[in-house]
Amino acid sequence: MPVGTQGTVKGVTPQQLKELNAQIVLSNTYHLHLRPGDELIKSFGGLHKFMNWSGPILTDSGGYQIFSLTKLRKMSEEGVTFQSHIDGSPIQLTPEKVIKIQENLGVDIMMVLDECLGYPAEREAVKKSLELTTRWAKRAKVAKVREEVSIFGIVQGGMYLDLRLESAQALVEIGFDGYAIGGLSVGEPPQMMYDIAEKIAPVLPQDKIRYLMGVGTPVDLVEAVSRGIDLFDCVIPTRSARFGRLFTKSGPLNIRNKEHRSSPDPVQNDCECYACRNFSRAYLSHLIHAKEVLFVTLASIHNLHFYQSLVLRMREEIVAGSFAEFKAEFLRSYRGELEGDARE
Amino acid sequence: MPVGTQGTVKGVTPQQLKELNAQIVLSNTYHLHLRPGDELIKSFGGLHKFMNWSGPILTDSGGYQIFSLTKLRKMSEEGVTFQSHIDGSPIQLTPEKVIKIQENLGVDIMMVLDECLGYPAEREAVKKSLELTTRWAKRAKVAKVREEVSIFGIVQGGMYLDLRLESAQALVEIGFDGYAIGGLSVGEPPQMMYDIAEKIAPVLPQDKIRYLMGVGTPVDLVEAVSRGIDLFDCVIPTRSARFGRLFTKSGPLNIRNKEHRSSPDPVQNDCECYACRNFSRAYLSHLIHAKEVLFVTLASIHNLHFYQSLVLRMREEIVAGSFAEFKAEFLRSYRGELEGDARE
Repeated sequence: MPVGTQGTVKGVTPQQLKELNAQIVLSNTYHLHLRPGDELIKSFGGLHKFMNWSGPILTDSGGYQIFSLTKLRKMSEEGVTFQSHIDGSPIQLTPEKVIKIQENLGVDIMMVLDECLGYPAEREAVKKSLELTTRWAKRAKVAKVREEVSIFGIVQGGMYLDLRLESAQALVEIGFDGYAIGGLSVGEPPQMMYDIAEKIAPVLPQDKIRYLMGVGTPVDLVEAVSRGIDLFDCVIPTRSARFGRLFTKSGPLNIRNKEHRSSPDPVQNDCECYACRNFSRAYLSHLIHAKEVLFVTLASIHNLHFYQSLVLRMREEIVAGSFAEFKAEFLRSYRGELEGDARE
Repeated sequence: MPVGTQGTVKGVTPQQLKELNAQIVLSNTYHLHLRPGDELIKSFGGLHKFMNWSGPILTDSGGYQIFSLTKLRKMSEEGVTFQSHIDGSPIQLTPEKVIKIQENLGVDIMMVLDECLGYPAEREAVKKSLELTTRWAKRAKVAKVREEVSIFGIVQGGMYLDLRLESAQALVEIGFDGYAIGGLSVGEPPQMMYDIAEKIAPVLPQDKIRYLMGVGTPVDLVEAVSRGIDLFDCVIPTRSARFGRLFTKSGPLNIRNKEHRSSPDPVQNDCECYACRNFSRAYLSHLIHAKEVLFVTLASIHNLHFYQSLVLRMREEIVAGSFAEFKAEFLRSYRGELEGDARE
């Protein structure tokens, strides 16, 4: 799903997002709590109305931002206190408060507060952390008031498979509407992430959504879907777009490269997105060199369309029973003509 | 008309521009000659195709940018030599070359190369300059090859009414498809600009377009239309938008101001633009404080819609014979509730 941390998917209007057939967007609890404030958004009838998005919204719990953006963090059984990355003011988030914030936002899927460690991390630290995350998950579920809203647990356990299994089993015992695998895509080799997805997805309930958080590249999506993952969120399509990295079936290209300056071709020949139907690589190259904001919009539309099409295609191939062939063909084509490294 | 110096109106797609009922856009000869190059654009079948704009395009001659952006200018009878503001490389533009560039771009309305002086300027310098501009205008008309393209002359003469009249008469003698009044909005008091428009518009042919270049605020447009001006170009709607200055019938507002942070109102209550139909001032305030690029798009859409609506309304009032009443009412309302100075 497209990621819109601050109540907008960067560079595109909700109307353009609808035209891209985006079904669900992610917003970030941490960012919206700090600015403009979840109470303000509640007074506007919730985040759907505030940002003019009528489709489903999932909010992550803020755990990732707390551990990546803030300074002077202090963990306790109760929760985590830290300084706002905007003005340094002190903030405490607890599992209960994070649910309250998400209920204020009025979203459709809430995530529990978790502790997100980096890679690598010591086994003992990971074990202690996942046990705390499990206790927090229990408290989050108890704190939930709104019946109609879904709540997802987050499997932690670093790169230790037995700890991952322990975390998954504990969460399944508590019982959630869906299960995320968190704490991946934090610097580990891709194969390590695939291995964990492969081992954890099967122990999660087959009738619930399995969500791989913060992932990933087009290759990551294909690899993870083949291991049983249903849902992803990632900034890659929009962030890469802003840096001129545009996705195609034969790998990403850097539109800043000289070869595109006089190319009459669209980014991808058979692409049906607004950018490819109407503009050449040469025009996009001109826009990015001239630092025109329209570049951000057109590039984001293209990359989001690429991701949406990829996911739709995978769904069709699964239904048709031909996913394995599709995967082999996709990887061959995508990895065949890379400009440098395909991973972000 | 919306201004898109580099082959795009900043922050909006051509599709959004069409939805705003924009009929003509301005692009800048100087910028496009330097980057990506008019020969490249010609090889793409012209600027309409390159930027995906099927409506009319007018290009200004580059005179204004030469005198505002470049260093080490050297004027001669032949033309002007200067250093590119991008890489310092030496460039010469002559009246003939500027026509050639515009014909390469394949635009609908070309402007002649003129010398654009600042304010204030000595009478003798202004006189010398306008005489050179007149000789250049003659050469430009001779240099024009493409029959189907319109060419407009540019009246200069600074703030000296007799020199303005001399310039206008000389241009009318040469004969152009339309006439611009240039060298205004360069720092002089607004009343001085209105006075010159008032005196010059009547001496220009009644069956040709009279175009006031680089103007202006909503008040400027109303004042100038009441003095016989038909066409304007200005960066104000989009540039103001980027700085958070949004136009309303009761004057511009600064969306950064605290009072808008929790306002559920649209920028303007009866406005039919995409931004006002879907978003509150509070959301726009959030976007600009969070430095979200979506702000630029929504704010630009609103301001362009304000200008388009204003011009459409003026046309209707002229046809209905009620322009004078409209003007009085507009100015009363617009100047009544200003946040600071209504002029940009």
